[in-house]
Amino acid sequence: MNQTSLDLGKFQRKAIQVDEAQSRIAGHVKQGEREEVGLEQAHERYLAMDLTAPHPYPRFRRSGMDGYAILGSDTDACSSGQEIWLRVVDEIPCGSVSDKRVETGLAARIMTGAQLPEGADTVVMLEATQLREEDGQTYVGLKKRMEIGKNVTPIGHEIQEGQLLLSKGTCLGPGHISVLATFGVHRVPVYRKPRVAVFSTGSELLAVDEPLQPGKIRNSNTYMLASQIREAGGEPFILQAIHDELDLARAAVREAIAAYDIVVTSGGVSVGDYDIMGDLVRQEDVDMLFNKVTMRPGSVTTAAVIDGKLLFALSGNPGACFVGCELFVRPTIQMMLSSEQPYLPTWTVRLGADYTKVNNFTRFVRSSLEIRDGQVYAIPAQADESSVMVTIKDSDCLIVVPPTTEGLRAGEEVRVLVLQGGQIT
Amino acid sequence: MNQTSLDLGKFQRKAIQVDEAQSRIAGHVKQGEREEVGLEQAHERYLAMDLTAPHPYPRFRRSGMDGYAILGSDTDACSSGQEIWLRVVDEIPCGSVSDKRVETGLAARIMTGAQLPEGADTVVMLEATQLREEDGQTYVGLKKRMEIGKNVTPIGHEIQEGQLLLSKGTCLGPGHISVLATFGVHRVPVYRKPRVAVFSTGSELLAVDEPLQPGKIRNSNTYMLASQIREAGGEPFILQAIHDELDLARAAVREAIAAYDIVVTSGGVSVGDYDIMGDLVRQEDVDMLFNKVTMRPGSVTTAAVIDGKLLFALSGNPGACFVGCELFVRPTIQMMLSSEQPYLPTWTVRLGADYTKVNNFTRFVRSSLEIRDGQVYAIPAQADESSVMVTIKDSDCLIVVPPTTEGLRAGEEVRVLVLQGGQIT
Repeated sequence: MNQTSLDLGKFQRKAIQVDEAQSRIAGHVKQGEREEVGLEQAHERYLAMDLTAPHPYPRFRRSGMDGYAILGSDTDACSSGQEIWLRVVDEIPCGSVSDKRVETGLAARIMTGAQLPEGADTVVMLEATQLREEDGQTYVGLKKRMEIGKNVTPIGHEIQEGQLLLSKGTCLGPGHISVLATFGVHRVPVYRKPRVAVFSTGSELLAVDEPLQPGKIRNSNTYMLASQIREAGGEPFILQAIHDELDLARAAVREAIAAYDIVVTSGGVSVGDYDIMGDLVRQEDVDMLFNKVTMRPGSVTTAAVIDGKLLFALSGNPGACFVGCELFVRPTIQMMLSSEQPYLPTWTVRLGADYTKVNNFTRFVRSSLEIRDGQVYAIPAQADESSVMVTIKDSDCLIVVPPTTEGLRAGEEVRVLVLQGGQIT
Repeated sequence: MNQTSLDLGKFQRKAIQVDEAQSRIAGHVKQGEREEVGLEQAHERYLAMDLTAPHPYPRFRRSGMDGYAILGSDTDACSSGQEIWLRVVDEIPCGSVSDKRVETGLAARIMTGAQLPEGADTVVMLEATQLREEDGQTYVGLKKRMEIGKNVTPIGHEIQEGQLLLSKGTCLGPGHISVLATFGVHRVPVYRKPRVAVFSTGSELLAVDEPLQPGKIRNSNTYMLASQIREAGGEPFILQAIHDELDLARAAVREAIAAYDIVVTSGGVSVGDYDIMGDLVRQEDVDMLFNKVTMRPGSVTTAAVIDGKLLFALSGNPGACFVGCELFVRPTIQMMLSSEQPYLPTWTVRLGADYTKVNNFTRFVRSSLEIRDGQVYAIPAQADESSVMVTIKDSDCLIVVPPTTEGLRAGEEVRVLVLQGGQIT
């Protein structure tokens, strides 16, 4: 009840815009460290260097068909519907190299993917041929004129030597991994996943495996944050919740700052008597970046630099905590991974339903996304109050509602930030 | 060169439609096994049972503000701009339960998230109050009329007891994990990840860490498939490549069928002499589901049931292998996980560029997705031949081009299958 001890700063915070807050953070992000992983472990990791092609691909003239490697010009005679017969001089399975040369009048049986023999420039598919044995020799007959080069993939058709294969910061999916395998990158240089310490503050919090007690709630934000951090490419470490005591909080934060790349807390940043994270970042040895942002939910979102590392003190309200993590923590992790798009992608879509709430701050409204005939609609959640946890799971995007005294009408164009796990249905 | 030994079946395959192929597969999918994981490990796992709320949430009347818990009716007196003063009888931090009752003329200091004391029905925010000490008593003054219930979240506001929280088959992201934590589900019933054996066939294949040899290529499909399988929710196991010998292949497949839930091979399914997977599925003890599908790429895609388990023999062409996995293997894994949407989501979008290739089969064209003013466009890859590996990484979706003798024009509506890793830019 000792309200006289309240620091005036608690009430008189200077609010900054979201993009200004993001840019202050960006100024303190350090690129992540590199490590090597086996190709099988590279899925969804972020490439730590540009990779260029050590050789063209394909590296040899490749047959695109099961059939016969021939000289295309030999089929000129077929123009008038006439069948030609070529003597089969070799059979080339995949992986083998023929030592025969295919001259005019000759052919070599060849499999899909095999290297064309010298001389041959065209492949005729097996189904378009017939065979004949004569004097112990095999002859292949065909009736159709072939374009020279047909069914042959030339050297470097897909990639030239020295061409950029994959850029630093690429998140590796199936197609990228296929490229890495093709060029023999069996040890992949990736960024070490940023290690992010997560804890919540608040004496009201029970561990998830504790039975409920009157007036208390279970600590859900840390688990949610851990999942968001994983999604962003980080490795979360859930630490013990901090109780509402400044000295304990300071010690816990210091320890985490020393041991991890990023520290994220939830709770303790509003203007109540027990809002210790707010007090902590106002201490002398902490470089506070901001403690108020012109956004809802999460206007009290706070960021600071301690010993060169970023501390994010997010709101304890689930909705505000979620948004704060997406707007500030996620980009930090993504920048450490050199991601080309550290911020959530922004689309312009149509509003699927009226939105009547008015704000003096920019509001980030949890919404679902639907597509109808190629047109994308964002439908605001029924309950998007900061304190509401249950609609977070149904959110595909955040509609960015600028400060407004009027509501928005269904059908209007709106800007949305698309969440990574967002589905469009 | 022994073409006479070619089984006639190689040429005379009966082609079926993609959806018929998918439905034949679906008839043989068994639901996955359950296991329990800790909440911290639940990210991106699939829930193995419906979960209902064991209690309402919030479970108590919760303050949405730092301020004072009061009787809303006490503020009626403020209507005429008059200040009222209430005696402060308690201070309620989060997690505490007050033993005081708030009667008319009284108030209790309360923190965001704390349980309202008996009697109180409204919370006035701290910033709208002032304090006065008198005779050792503290009084809080306020000037504004408050709606009863203001800043109080009622019991069950988000979720009622017994309400469905999360459905079986939900892929768990941050919002779901928040729900699980809130309700104390610290051990989460999830499906065991389907174990999928992957190998390629073909003597032309080098291991990714082998130096290149003339005529040979590195085995890239297995790594790509492993990444696709992870993306679909499975656990891939890359086995040693099978060389082109039927007995060896049969033994390897049998062994894999016994040890894993699903077996996927790439290569060896077309009509060449060395296409052993094609031969293998025609054997008596194998229940072949199909060995030709009216699709490009990957018309030779083959599926069979051996000892009750699914074998997918995909084309060795990278593009066909990729598409075959997305159309047939992915849904199998997703169905084992009870996913609500086992097949790739289908959208109707606009074609972003002319597509001139004609087919007698349905073609699945690798494409990127762009959004402009809420309208989504699919832009076909420049090189989408089955054999081309390099454009797979740039694909966000597959345009479904029905059999056509004319091309498609930019601006036309087209149906696309959206890939899981697909980005819209």
